[in-house]
Amino acid sequence: MAAATTALAGRVLVYGGRGALGATIVQHFKTQGWWVGAIDLQANDQAHGNVVVSSRTSLVEQEKEIVAGVKGLLAESKLDAILCVAGGWAGGSAAAADFIANTDLCVTQSLWSSVIAARLASLFLKDGGLLTLTGAGAAKDPTPGMIGYGMVKAAVHHLVRSLGDPKGGLPADAFALAILPVTLDTPMNRKWMPKADHTTWTPLDTGSKCLRLLVHGNAPLVTGTQNVILEGWVVVDTPV
Amino acid sequence: MAAATTALAGRVLVYGGRGALGATIVQHFKTQGWWVGAIDLQANDQAHGNVVVSSRTSLVEQEKEIVAGVKGLLAESKLDAILCVAGGWAGGSAAAADFIANTDLCVTQSLWSSVIAARLASLFLKDGGLLTLTGAGAAKDPTPGMIGYGMVKAAVHHLVRSLGDPKGGLPADAFALAILPVTLDTPMNRKWMPKADHTTWTPLDTGSKCLRLLVHGNAPLVTGTQNVILEGWVVVDTPV
Repeated sequence: MAAATTALAGRVLVYGGRGALGATIVQHFKTQGWWVGAIDLQANDQAHGNVVVSSRTSLVEQEKEIVAGVKGLLAESKLDAILCVAGGWAGGSAAAADFIANTDLCVTQSLWSSVIAARLASLFLKDGGLLTLTGAGAAKDPTPGMIGYGMVKAAVHHLVRSLGDPKGGLPADAFALAILPVTLDTPMNRKWMPKADHTTWTPLDTGSKCLRLLVHGNAPLVTGTQNVILEGWVVVDTPV
Repeated sequence: MAAATTALAGRVLVYGGRGALGATIVQHFKTQGWWVGAIDLQANDQAHGNVVVSSRTSLVEQEKEIVAGVKGLLAESKLDAILCVAGGWAGGSAAAADFIANTDLCVTQSLWSSVIAARLASLFLKDGGLLTLTGAGAAKDPTPGMIGYGMVKAAVHHLVRSLGDPKGGLPADAFALAILPVTLDTPMNRKWMPKADHTTWTPLDTGSKCLRLLVHGNAPLVTGTQNVILEGWVVVDTPV
């Protein structure tokens, strides 16, 4: 059903809204009649509002900039959902020459965005709203070939577990989830893994559908277990 | 046996060697006839050599400074053990005003030191040597009241799991462990928790003894389980 409507379906903030997955999510929710805000290093013209991040060297400064930007976008409104799909991948064992640089990249890309998203949820999410962060299925096990990446994603899993506790600081009845996508079918992943079997990869649009099911509360979740919402999209509310 | 000897018992690097626990460990190994190097923000005069860290704002710069310093101390020698007890504590849920600042502190104090220690182990540890990092028993569960701290310690646990894999980048047969001390009886902890029952806290010297048992391979460890080496000192080689 694609009937036009002037009623606002809800307000969602997509953190990483200019990335391959994020842009798909922005477009998807917009089509569904949502107000969509985006946070990224560049603006997404499809979003109703943008916070463009210029502070790149300090977590504390970056958070200040983003909180002020979101406050400006929302005025007194609250958000139904914050969907954080910011992040990136970088590999290497402890013996790799770029181990530390790549670990630093994972920290600033995935850990900073996750804790700032948690702070935004504390400040701007409605009671009963949804926060999703992006973990990694791989991080449930050791990741010797991509130590920094696995370590940071394990930290994100722990963050979600703490946020899921009533004393974690989110608004009343808010819900924190980790999504654990397998390899996404993005242009960047095709560039770096040209010989992989792309038919086994997860199309970006199922990500949007998965998140919409979660936002609407239509995805039955079993606490503490993995929940496969749509093919290739694993969601856990208490990562194990 | 405390017979004096001129033979060097071994070479150990204590990361955080000027802190309350670190200084105790430096002193302990020195008394046992070891060459002891210390890394910290200030020199420990009891150590045979020091790397004083001045770079505080960039992980990549800090690692360069420390690697150069350790290389200068060791010349061509290798280390029997690297014991990382650097780190600190900071609390707060996502609703706390200082949530982001305290999370940043935990990242720079505990995560940076842990990954740099892993890199040092890759570069300077002997085959069959020992790396210990400091985790936290609390981080096995959600930590809603100290989210950043628990998240970073969960990351350290994952780091140890990856380093324990043969492809993790440590020298051949090297061993990576996490120590999970309960509350340590330090002056700082007494200052912040004056009303706690201090008789249940772990004395610092049992930490030194615990680490010495580990360094000498005299502590029987069961992989994947918690191993209580000495009262109050839990060691896991695969944090769970």
